[in-house]
Amino acid sequence: MQLTQEGCLARRARMWEALPEDVQWVLIADPRHVQYLANFWVQPLSFSGGERGLLLLERSGKATLMGDNFAIRSAAHKPYVDREILTPWYDHKHSVINRDHALFQALEKVVPEIAGRTGRVEAEWLPLGAANVLGAAAIDGQLGTLLRKLRRQKEADEIALMKHCMQAGDAGQAWLRENLREDMTEFDIYRGVQEAAVKAAGRPALVYGDFRAANAEHHKTGGLPTDYTLKEGDLFVLDYSVVLDGYRSDFTNTMSIGEPSAAVVEMFALCQAGMAAGEQIIKAGVAAKDVHAAVAGPYREAGRPELFPHHAGHGIGLGHPEPPILVPESTDVLVAGDVITLEPGAYQAGIGGMRIEHNYLITETGYERLSNHIISLT
Amino acid sequence: MQLTQEGCLARRARMWEALPEDVQWVLIADPRHVQYLANFWVQPLSFSGGERGLLLLERSGKATLMGDNFAIRSAAHKPYVDREILTPWYDHKHSVINRDHALFQALEKVVPEIAGRTGRVEAEWLPLGAANVLGAAAIDGQLGTLLRKLRRQKEADEIALMKHCMQAGDAGQAWLRENLREDMTEFDIYRGVQEAAVKAAGRPALVYGDFRAANAEHHKTGGLPTDYTLKEGDLFVLDYSVVLDGYRSDFTNTMSIGEPSAAVVEMFALCQAGMAAGEQIIKAGVAAKDVHAAVAGPYREAGRPELFPHHAGHGIGLGHPEPPILVPESTDVLVAGDVITLEPGAYQAGIGGMRIEHNYLITETGYERLSNHIISLT
Repeated sequence: MQLTQEGCLARRARMWEALPEDVQWVLIADPRHVQYLANFWVQPLSFSGGERGLLLLERSGKATLMGDNFAIRSAAHKPYVDREILTPWYDHKHSVINRDHALFQALEKVVPEIAGRTGRVEAEWLPLGAANVLGAAAIDGQLGTLLRKLRRQKEADEIALMKHCMQAGDAGQAWLRENLREDMTEFDIYRGVQEAAVKAAGRPALVYGDFRAANAEHHKTGGLPTDYTLKEGDLFVLDYSVVLDGYRSDFTNTMSIGEPSAAVVEMFALCQAGMAAGEQIIKAGVAAKDVHAAVAGPYREAGRPELFPHHAGHGIGLGHPEPPILVPESTDVLVAGDVITLEPGAYQAGIGGMRIEHNYLITETGYERLSNHIISLT
Repeated sequence: MQLTQEGCLARRARMWEALPEDVQWVLIADPRHVQYLANFWVQPLSFSGGERGLLLLERSGKATLMGDNFAIRSAAHKPYVDREILTPWYDHKHSVINRDHALFQALEKVVPEIAGRTGRVEAEWLPLGAANVLGAAAIDGQLGTLLRKLRRQKEADEIALMKHCMQAGDAGQAWLRENLREDMTEFDIYRGVQEAAVKAAGRPALVYGDFRAANAEHHKTGGLPTDYTLKEGDLFVLDYSVVLDGYRSDFTNTMSIGEPSAAVVEMFALCQAGMAAGEQIIKAGVAAKDVHAAVAGPYREAGRPELFPHHAGHGIGLGHPEPPILVPESTDVLVAGDVITLEPGAYQAGIGGMRIEHNYLITETGYERLSNHIISLT
């Protein structure tokens, strides 16, 4: 399961369509965008985690990946490029130079090929040191913005990868449902969820999110787990993501330790009503702020708007959160190919906090729900 | 367990000493160096994984962290800075702009304070887009190189953090010793090791490395686990790292599934003799190439130099590998404060492959061994 060549080529074609015709080449520097367009991702679970490659794309179709030999070797998958220009940064024989400079040396090798031709560089990520190699030409502070916009309309391979993340995410939620009990710590749960999710993913994955208990004293919490031990009456909010090749899931359930109080049950029902109301209206062309209004509707109607203070959801993909942002003053509009979350919550001091969340692929006529976990307090 | 303010201040002091006196400010952009100098690390296990902050340090002592509000909020720990300049990228009410541009907007706010004063920017990581904000002044393509050099001499807080990684790493090695059996897959082992290591770390951590079986057919292997099922006669090479706040351990043992053959036992003894020979000579002032020669000695003396084709070890810290590089033509020299690996291996087609590895803090008189796992085939 990985991005396909077909998908990468389709994304490149869309990028070229969106760029002025005289632009003959682009130099991509954001690691997420190198992945997006060429399936090159330095495995974050490797000794090269955090290292970078640069991608030169030419309108003729030619694709060149540049990097140091160790970063390129740490690719999570085989990249879809016509050539790789590697600097032999580390050869098991000599000392090493500054690894970043090795990257710039690789870039230096293509400079003669693009000099004098109109091109663009991704200024948001291209390091100044690389720009010096390239010469002063060709700067475009908006290339990254264009790519972020294109990213919203996911191709089939991206959806497939995200569905795989979702299946792994489902497994972690199922683990919680089977194993939750008082006297576990948040950290115990984190490890159990991670194990279940990674096992279901079938390969190493990043797992992150909120692994926290909420209760009358702490009704708004979030973040990685602590050593806190769950007790009767706590609500465990499992809002977490599984990341594969930079793509991710992001969905939530809240479970009660012991029987939930009537107040908690009532708040949970509002969350579910909010989610159902959101599902009623999401499709391409709908304003993001209207989705927020829909999700917030049941809270308003119940005279409890203050219970739901945050966004109704957001886009996910290579980023989290990313547009569309489902908030009251959003100017975003849903497009087909968006993958979004709907995540109503309810928080009240003296009672507790909770949140539920599903992920959806937006279509012209509505949506396909991508997450399949059970949403239930008990 | 995290970097201390004292440690960050000591590292800054060393940096200032190494910079020309007229340099009044530096702008740090490599995320590893922002961590190194200010304890700011965007938690990679968060929705902000991969995002960045920028750090402005002034010779007067003032430290300013810049970033978007979500990236700064995703800090693994409280950073040691005098102020944080946040761009409210995401406010739960409005659409979002390009997140990278939000970072540049934060930078824009300090430009008036540093304009006209002599400074340096870290060109290896500062994006061109940020440089545009800053104006053309102040570029220094060597600041990153200076910081990489300084990084070799670890301060007490860095050592403490690495020791914590080592303890977690030890736990994963112990898990393997207790649980290894045929019919497990490499992926099963990976998950068991990860669980044991993260549990011992006491908080979420990145776990990566080689989780592979070697045997007569595949004597040289490495990388993340596959679905391969272990069988009698295989050698499992567990060469893995635990990363906390960017710092890491990196050590190895090789275990035999079933009784090892005489040939395997003999090769393993060469690895152990190589490690012992390396331990005999490591201390500050010793040439890295001499360490390689020492580790390779027992193989040469046995008339089997070809069994050991790779480095004898390397530095670790915020990077992996990093100087000093223990190879035949290295020009590096060990310094007090280096944390290095010694990792002799032996690989022979038709028999199998193996590697052992410990981590050491280099001192003026020798070393302190930081890893404490058992090195043994069975």
